Amino acid sequence: MNDDATEATRPNIDEANRTAVGRMVASRPRLVDVATAGDVIPGLTKDLLLHAGPPIAWPRMSGPLRGAIIGALIFEGLAQDADEAAELAASGDIRFAPCHDHQTVGPMAGVVSSSMAVWVVEDDTHGGQTFSTLNEGYGKVLRYGAYDDEVLDRLRFLNGTMAPMLSSALSKGDAGGGEAIDLRALLAEALHMGDEGHNRNKAGSILLATRLAPALVRVARDATGDALARVLAFLGENALSVLNPVMAAAKAMADAAHDVPGSTVVSTMARNGTEFGIRVSGLGNRWFTAPCATPQGLYFAGFSADDANPDIGDSTITETAGFGAFAMAAAPAIVRFVSGAPRDAIAATLEMYEITVGEHDHFTIPPLDFRGTPVGIDIRRVVELGITPRVNTGIAHKEAGIGQIGAGLVRPPMALFEEALEAFAEQHLRA
Amino acid sequence: MNDDATEATRPNIDEANRTAVGRMVASRPRLVDVATAGDVIPGLTKDLLLHAGPPIAWPRMSGPLRGAIIGALIFEGLAQDADEAAELAASGDIRFAPCHDHQTVGPMAGVVSSSMAVWVVEDDTHGGQTFSTLNEGYGKVLRYGAYDDEVLDRLRFLNGTMAPMLSSALSKGDAGGGEAIDLRALLAEALHMGDEGHNRNKAGSILLATRLAPALVRVARDATGDALARVLAFLGENALSVLNPVMAAAKAMADAAHDVPGSTVVSTMARNGTEFGIRVSGLGNRWFTAPCATPQGLYFAGFSADDANPDIGDSTITETAGFGAFAMAAAPAIVRFVSGAPRDAIAATLEMYEITVGEHDHFTIPPLDFRGTPVGIDIRRVVELGITPRVNTGIAHKEAGIGQIGAGLVRPPMALFEEALEAFAEQHLRA
Repeated sequence: MNDDATEATRPNIDEANRTAVGRMVASRPRLVDVATAGDVIPGLTKDLLLHAGPPIAWPRMSGPLRGAIIGALIFEGLAQDADEAAELAASGDIRFAPCHDHQTVGPMAGVVSSSMAVWVVEDDTHGGQTFSTLNEGYGKVLRYGAYDDEVLDRLRFLNGTMAPMLSSALSKGDAGGGEAIDLRALLAEALHMGDEGHNRNKAGSILLATRLAPALVRVARDATGDALARVLAFLGENALSVLNPVMAAAKAMADAAHDVPGSTVVSTMARNGTEFGIRVSGLGNRWFTAPCATPQGLYFAGFSADDANPDIGDSTITETAGFGAFAMAAAPAIVRFVSGAPRDAIAATLEMYEITVGEHDHFTIPPLDFRGTPVGIDIRRVVELGITPRVNTGIAHKEAGIGQIGAGLVRPPMALFEEALEAFAEQHLRA
Repeated sequence: MNDDATEATRPNIDEANRTAVGRMVASRPRLVDVATAGDVIPGLTKDLLLHAGPPIAWPRMSGPLRGAIIGALIFEGLAQDADEAAELAASGDIRFAPCHDHQTVGPMAGVVSSSMAVWVVEDDTHGGQTFSTLNEGYGKVLRYGAYDDEVLDRLRFLNGTMAPMLSSALSKGDAGGGEAIDLRALLAEALHMGDEGHNRNKAGSILLATRLAPALVRVARDATGDALARVLAFLGENALSVLNPVMAAAKAMADAAHDVPGSTVVSTMARNGTEFGIRVSGLGNRWFTAPCATPQGLYFAGFSADDANPDIGDSTITETAGFGAFAMAAAPAIVRFVSGAPRDAIAATLEMYEITVGEHDHFTIPPLDFRGTPVGIDIRRVVELGITPRVNTGIAHKEAGIGQIGAGLVRPPMALFEEALEAFAEQHLRA
């Protein structure tokens, strides 16, 4: 085989990566409904629970993921208490699968069961739907592995009271409230208002609440004023209201970049609390996994790094799609929450340009003269430069039932990218 | 008289300035009601119109101020059309006074008449009330001197539909909706979300809308869903909703710093479209005035600097109280609206530290490592350094009836500060 032939049979990786990132940036996800997970998520049956990160079986699950599974089984009425739920989870009668394999993403434990309400997001550009649960707010919450009555009561409020109202206000809901919220535009606006779209979603959440309020009032004539007021207060006061729909939007963007032959762009990054997993556009649905690190950050009073669970959650889909820690420079105030100084926020974004393929057309950063965010992680550059992607994250207690204990920064293990690059070379370059 | 005696009789200016700025920063204005201007603003009778800036008589008023006066007289039912209104305004039967002399502030023309609804702000620290009208949004609006049916219809909606609902939602309103919004805390939050509180109020406005929405829903049981939805949409979509209450809050802060004997701190900056006027804490209620400059900025399509009215409005109360252009570094995205680059926004704030007495305890700037905003303009430093305060502003068309044509930057004339400093020297240093 001569050199010319080698050139001809080798994929043009740079071109494939431009295609992948072009598709990612062109994705235009809109929020169109809230529906019951089992009715809309393909393949989600009563005996299946979705979770964050790469595939994992019950025996290897960490505390917070186990806690969320226990809570979901009680919420579904499949178990009466924690012991019964744990027994059922271990029995083999319940199956587990990554959210990512079902067009879904979930923050932290990311557990989704069939009765839970989910946001429905549609990609106007590429078609298809993605899903995420309603965010529960702060404190003791299922996604951090808590499952007591407070947690379950809130889930019932979200599913029983808030979800039907939200559905009515949205364009594909029963009442045809008419709202279809362009999440890419909303996030672009939020990045000009001090959000980075992952750990800081204050602006995006009140943009969402403000956008939905008139439609909620128009359609909720039958609701009592108090129930509607409670829904508006919950949406408006929870500075993470928009995180879950934004994650579903990022999933749509990342999926649009997946399965481009010859592309070395990362299309999934996700953690299950035990392992960090990535997938690469040109390498199909194979997960590359390695043990999770524990985040570095700031802890709530009374907690320390000793209490922390290793990194967990699908929310790294935000960095995968070119925001979150990649847009830190837009969100200098976040350092009060995740540690560091504002100059570190600038440095974080600048570093991520080193390992990415492009600059985002729609997500721009005012302090960097409106430069587009770094988008499309190239595993070649990660390995070559020795720079792993930055991730902002919440920190969960390592035991089931406790919840969030801090927030901080983390990076996936370098081994993931090395292993993926070897697999890529195996598949594409040694033809 | 020997030197010791001179020292003893001289006021300690630095100490007086620290007292003035201490009072300004300690002011904690809360939004407690919406009421009819004539019922709550001291001395506001049916034949009196308040306006922005220093005192001015009809013959010397600029186009947009005349337009707003005409609109207000029609709105009050005192004139049938523009000709009749102009005749009445010139007749001497209508009196004019600065908003500032009636505990009130108004953006642009700043015209307030007795039937208009006003926000009521109370200073928890120093007591007393301040007032401002409801913001009309963008486009053709009274504050820019437009007065056609579209403008008057919107005023009737604000006064007839929105004002009673807002009153009901607020703590001192008839229905006791219970909300009393801490405007200092709200603005501090907005400065961490890309606002500077004068020309950019996107975050503050949706914070306000989100905060009020649950109370509005609780109290507005009698309102039709459509009317309530329209109010929520108007509040949430108008990125200047919070400007007027924030200006009333700034007025409370600035007034708290007024009348401190021996202080050279500026306690008022305001423009009536013809003259720029300032007042100084230690110099009582005397206005120092000079002709207004025309702002430098970006014009809407079809307009240029030739169409621009000289600088107008009380909104310079924001800079007087240590935000607006003084907090530009917090709002890099604003340069797309007022011209310049993000680095100019940083430079603008840094320059203002040169002429101010202190750094704000509550208003901090993330990109400057959470440094407090520059607060308390010292006329001595302005004159000594040759640096006048920076002001962000909208730009009005010079003719009555047209409206906003752009936004930009402006500075008050240096002559004001020189004249004020001479007066101060006259009064305090030559005893």
